[in-house]
Amino acid sequence: MSGTEKPRVAFLGPEASYTHQATLDTFSPDTYTLAPQTTIEDVFAAVQDGSVYRGVVPFENSTNGSVVFTLDLFANLHGKYGDLLVCGEAYVNVSHCLLGLDATSPQNYSKITKLYSHPQAWGQCKTFLQKHLKHAERFDVSSTSRAAQMVAQSKDSGAAAISSKVAGTLFKLSLLSEGINDVSGNQTRFLVLRRKDSPQTSAPSTPPATVNSDEENYKTLLLFTLPYTPSDPNPGALAQCLSVFGRHKLNLTSINTRPSGVANWEYIFFIEFKGRKDDDEGGAVNAAFKELGGVCEWYRWLGSWENRLPAPSSQK
Amino acid sequence: MSGTEKPRVAFLGPEASYTHQATLDTFSPDTYTLAPQTTIEDVFAAVQDGSVYRGVVPFENSTNGSVVFTLDLFANLHGKYGDLLVCGEAYVNVSHCLLGLDATSPQNYSKITKLYSHPQAWGQCKTFLQKHLKHAERFDVSSTSRAAQMVAQSKDSGAAAISSKVAGTLFKLSLLSEGINDVSGNQTRFLVLRRKDSPQTSAPSTPPATVNSDEENYKTLLLFTLPYTPSDPNPGALAQCLSVFGRHKLNLTSINTRPSGVANWEYIFFIEFKGRKDDDEGGAVNAAFKELGGVCEWYRWLGSWENRLPAPSSQK
Repeated sequence: MSGTEKPRVAFLGPEASYTHQATLDTFSPDTYTLAPQTTIEDVFAAVQDGSVYRGVVPFENSTNGSVVFTLDLFANLHGKYGDLLVCGEAYVNVSHCLLGLDATSPQNYSKITKLYSHPQAWGQCKTFLQKHLKHAERFDVSSTSRAAQMVAQSKDSGAAAISSKVAGTLFKLSLLSEGINDVSGNQTRFLVLRRKDSPQTSAPSTPPATVNSDEENYKTLLLFTLPYTPSDPNPGALAQCLSVFGRHKLNLTSINTRPSGVANWEYIFFIEFKGRKDDDEGGAVNAAFKELGGVCEWYRWLGSWENRLPAPSSQK
Repeated sequence: MSGTEKPRVAFLGPEASYTHQATLDTFSPDTYTLAPQTTIEDVFAAVQDGSVYRGVVPFENSTNGSVVFTLDLFANLHGKYGDLLVCGEAYVNVSHCLLGLDATSPQNYSKITKLYSHPQAWGQCKTFLQKHLKHAERFDVSSTSRAAQMVAQSKDSGAAAISSKVAGTLFKLSLLSEGINDVSGNQTRFLVLRRKDSPQTSAPSTPPATVNSDEENYKTLLLFTLPYTPSDPNPGALAQCLSVFGRHKLNLTSINTRPSGVANWEYIFFIEFKGRKDDDEGGAVNAAFKELGGVCEWYRWLGSWENRLPAPSSQK
């Protein structure tokens, strides 16, 4: 890194958010200036307008599924974020806690009438909430750490946040209950974003996970839409597009669907598979993209990056 | 209908919810007793335990995508709702309104500090909320009509609900703004549930939509999981499963993915296609299911029902 100013990395803040953790795991504060943003879209915008070197956004939780806000920002075809590519990922263990102001009777949840958290967290703590806090009103806020901050500022002993232990310490809250998520190995996957014209190396500060083969070392994300007109609904188009990946022996790792935003009941499909596009001009990945171009309406490559999911043998 | 008691139909309430509208469109109150429930799971439970004849739940919005609560209840494999099948669908036009107590200055949104709605509604009114109500706190409640009821009960002129015009009338609220959803043709699709041992006819009170061919007259929903062990991640299994439908010329209409709930980064796949299983013992649908059984880990047929989406030519 030349010059005196450190490259900036935008992340969904405030400090102590899980995205902050993912960012710290990938970008050392010795080398980078970490810049918290209020919303996921603010992170996209900062990367797109070139004011930061990289951006980090949540993508998928192992219990609650895809972060649709992030998918919809990728899907936004109207030129807003067309210069972004994914260039890395990070997995973070998510252990939610119930944080409040008053720790005198931690097991008495009946006095908690207001709950603050990020919408994703409700779906990750369903069992605990159903059992202990069905009576409490829920307030959606922009991140779990913002929820902790709001409870701290409220000075209301009837308010509690679902957030991380780190956020509890930062905002001086009491730990009313720990590990309240439904699944104990709950994890969130984050994506690192760059501008197309920014160099690809994302300088991870941790070594890559052990993987089985070279192909397993990379992941590629793309989106596509189907050819469709009211007079010709093109039956079978989706199956045709998906079969391309099988024919080229590309291992699909996830599929997501979102409304197209153009017409009702038309979709944008997100496909992730093992392999990389960039260093493989003549290989299976490029051949698959070329073939897909002949059957879909249009597609967009959203990036290829190093797989950082630990190999299956080391998973519980 | 024999006897003096009308069959009961459970729906996500309270009255004046969009699910209520879908229920009224399908089940005439002259013939059925409509029974509002507090949550989507309450509707599933009422159908499963046989206390109602049918249940109606939201499934998908044309702007905001799938209702993941409903998908996760179908995915719940642990015996809880294993006897449910989908036997019908209904499409409802969703036009959201901003409802409050005080209509004197309808364009002055700055005094509105608290917003109540169902989580799905936030994603359907993003542009309006971003422009006029970025400052307001959001309260998640169980349905849009419950949101209107809460604002009415609050007697707080700083509170507003995103809900239907019908709910505004029912709860005597002022219409602060109308049609605030991002997409003017915003629609939600609802599913009708029955117990396996209940007769299939869902007695729709409106005629079926005009469709192109016999195959287009029905839809089938199923879920499947992939064979997977840590020592054998089975690359290509997803593509293999999906190719089954293409081989049998079944037109896939949607794909959804949810976390399996069993292990991190394993998924349950929901597939919907044109065609029906029940009256077609020897046909393409049954052949596809048989073949799928040979490549997936396991699958479950979730029902076949009459397509009620108006034919493309009549869509805008």
